[in-house]
Amino acid sequence: MSSFHFTIDAECPDSWARAGTISTPHGTILTPIFMPVGTQATVKSVSPEELRAAGAQIILANTYHLMLRPGSSLVAEFGGLHSFMHWDGPILTDSGGFQVWSLGHLRKLNEDGVTFKSHLDGSYHILTPERVMEIEAELGSDIILPLDICAPYPCSPLEARKAMENTHRWEERALIAKERHRPEQTLFGIVQGAFEPELRRESARVIGNMPFPGLSIGGLSVGEPKAQMWEMLRHVTPELPRDKPRHLLGVGSPEDMVMGVGLGMDMFDCVLPTRVARHGGLFTATGRVNIKSSRFRTVRGPIEEGCDCYTCRNYSAGYVHHLIRAEEQLYYRLGTIHNVHFMLRLAAQLRAAIQAGTYTQFRDEFLARYVPASEQVREQQREKWKAARERQADVR
Amino acid sequence: MSSFHFTIDAECPDSWARAGTISTPHGTILTPIFMPVGTQATVKSVSPEELRAAGAQIILANTYHLMLRPGSSLVAEFGGLHSFMHWDGPILTDSGGFQVWSLGHLRKLNEDGVTFKSHLDGSYHILTPERVMEIEAELGSDIILPLDICAPYPCSPLEARKAMENTHRWEERALIAKERHRPEQTLFGIVQGAFEPELRRESARVIGNMPFPGLSIGGLSVGEPKAQMWEMLRHVTPELPRDKPRHLLGVGSPEDMVMGVGLGMDMFDCVLPTRVARHGGLFTATGRVNIKSSRFRTVRGPIEEGCDCYTCRNYSAGYVHHLIRAEEQLYYRLGTIHNVHFMLRLAAQLRAAIQAGTYTQFRDEFLARYVPASEQVREQQREKWKAARERQADVR
Repeated sequence: MSSFHFTIDAECPDSWARAGTISTPHGTILTPIFMPVGTQATVKSVSPEELRAAGAQIILANTYHLMLRPGSSLVAEFGGLHSFMHWDGPILTDSGGFQVWSLGHLRKLNEDGVTFKSHLDGSYHILTPERVMEIEAELGSDIILPLDICAPYPCSPLEARKAMENTHRWEERALIAKERHRPEQTLFGIVQGAFEPELRRESARVIGNMPFPGLSIGGLSVGEPKAQMWEMLRHVTPELPRDKPRHLLGVGSPEDMVMGVGLGMDMFDCVLPTRVARHGGLFTATGRVNIKSSRFRTVRGPIEEGCDCYTCRNYSAGYVHHLIRAEEQLYYRLGTIHNVHFMLRLAAQLRAAIQAGTYTQFRDEFLARYVPASEQVREQQREKWKAARERQADVR
Repeated sequence: MSSFHFTIDAECPDSWARAGTISTPHGTILTPIFMPVGTQATVKSVSPEELRAAGAQIILANTYHLMLRPGSSLVAEFGGLHSFMHWDGPILTDSGGFQVWSLGHLRKLNEDGVTFKSHLDGSYHILTPERVMEIEAELGSDIILPLDICAPYPCSPLEARKAMENTHRWEERALIAKERHRPEQTLFGIVQGAFEPELRRESARVIGNMPFPGLSIGGLSVGEPKAQMWEMLRHVTPELPRDKPRHLLGVGSPEDMVMGVGLGMDMFDCVLPTRVARHGGLFTATGRVNIKSSRFRTVRGPIEEGCDCYTCRNYSAGYVHHLIRAEEQLYYRLGTIHNVHFMLRLAAQLRAAIQAGTYTQFRDEFLARYVPASEQVREQQREKWKAARERQADVR
């Protein structure tokens, strides 16, 4: 039997924010929570011990990447992902669907599933709702997601409806197929519906009523303006059952997590904190700084005063600046640790604020202080990453 | 006053091997010892805590690289190298001379010193024996080396003599200049003489009689066959004072350290263990293996059975293989930790054997078991690294 369990510890009187506790076979997660992304069975540049020390309670790994390399059956031979990658805490795996659309080539969709060519070696693969359940059983993660279709942005209302209905049918098949595999794994449902309010509400009702112990909101943060993403959540959340944890897939930045919590989301995952760290973007209370900037060359204090991450406790901003300028590998680790710790400290602060009944005040103060990367900078980065996608296997 | 002190704890009756203890302001070093190389104030991909855990007692940093970036005066502003890089153990800095010849451009030598163009930005720099003492005082390392001339291989006997005599004059100037700086630093002398037995003996006598508390043997491992390197040490060691620690500059591999100890050397440094690790070459008792090889894909055991390094204690060879195949940064760290730990465990085993009076037996058994990389593979790697030199700043 699954030991999965979700309890609500506190709710915000002025928003949809809540603080909860999720029990899994590999330990407990206090929500709201940020999940660092370990795309290829490793969170880039950091060790499991460092993730723990930075406050990580659960990580996400990508089914698409792992099925292609090293292969899910090989991971199973090693005793599953936890043992393979030396992380004994909870793991969530996505379904691979998102990467099929963003990374795979020559995709061919039919009612049964999707055929695609691997971005690594051009080999052909087929994913069906049933096959995804089998792969995730081999990976052995604690929380698994069903195959879904992430509609592109923008897309026509008809296309959005077709993708949503197809996803719903696949999710029913996933629920059935899952019965044949590991009972200790928990299958979340995925809400789709693109940017059509009516579809979003419908998807939330349909999936919310299926016997999924938790729900992921998919198809957001795919290039739309942020206001549109929040607008969709305003339609989705009221339709969701209160007693199931809610995961906002692929989101986000510090300010996105702060906003998303108020719109009823409990779990967040995104490569952004680790990816921008590798490019020199480090989080502070007043916004993201670029540690490559020459203004850090002589700074003897830490990246952020008062930060108690490993990096800030032991290294000056000037040394971290030296490492990235010299393209030294230790930089990537120190930057990543700082940003992961920032996200997890922020999650803990959000939880404490919800428990104290002061979430909306915390949110407003945070957003007033924290200057997000401008839309222009974000657009430039998206273009850069899109180009990098062609070369690299590090997306989502 | 310097707290530098060297005592001999045991001597081998059948070779020139000895076990000793070196005291420095930042701690004690048990010899024979391998010194990991932290070229740019970081041992590539590993943290100071990981170096300690792998058994590191002293590390080496490169004056040439640090004077160019971030600059020795900046390092001084951060309280010196120890504080800058968060390593509180002993540090040895070389003189920069070797890199001027291997990396710098448009070198111009005269009696006063050497002018060269930076490999980073083409800027002009002058090194003199006096300036090097000033730079190393700013870096604040425990053991410092004087500016020397490393004759190319091969070179004429006349060229070898001129370089040696010039080096001797510079070393006298370094001794005088050093008086103006930090008394807690210890200046080693450097023995040169290229591959001329007579010059090697003369240099050992001259430098051995100057008031240096320790001696580095330079100009070896510069492309000559190994037999020729060992032949030179057979001329040098008998001329050296017994009571000063002896450092074999830029050497070497596991088999080189085992051999060098028997020829009277106490300290070793080389980028080889960390560099080959980054390319997939990992040390085991029977020789170097290539972890990229598909034969490791399904190996659930560690890289080396019985190895107690962090990598082998926590990760399968199959996972380490996955990481390097996926070009994941965590690989570089795990591989480097294994090789550094291997070198330091080997150094400890050599010390124990000397103390037990069984060094020659240990050496013969080690060399019988350990298959070194073939001369052909070594030559190929040298060519690759020479090419990489043009692009990168990671040499020596």
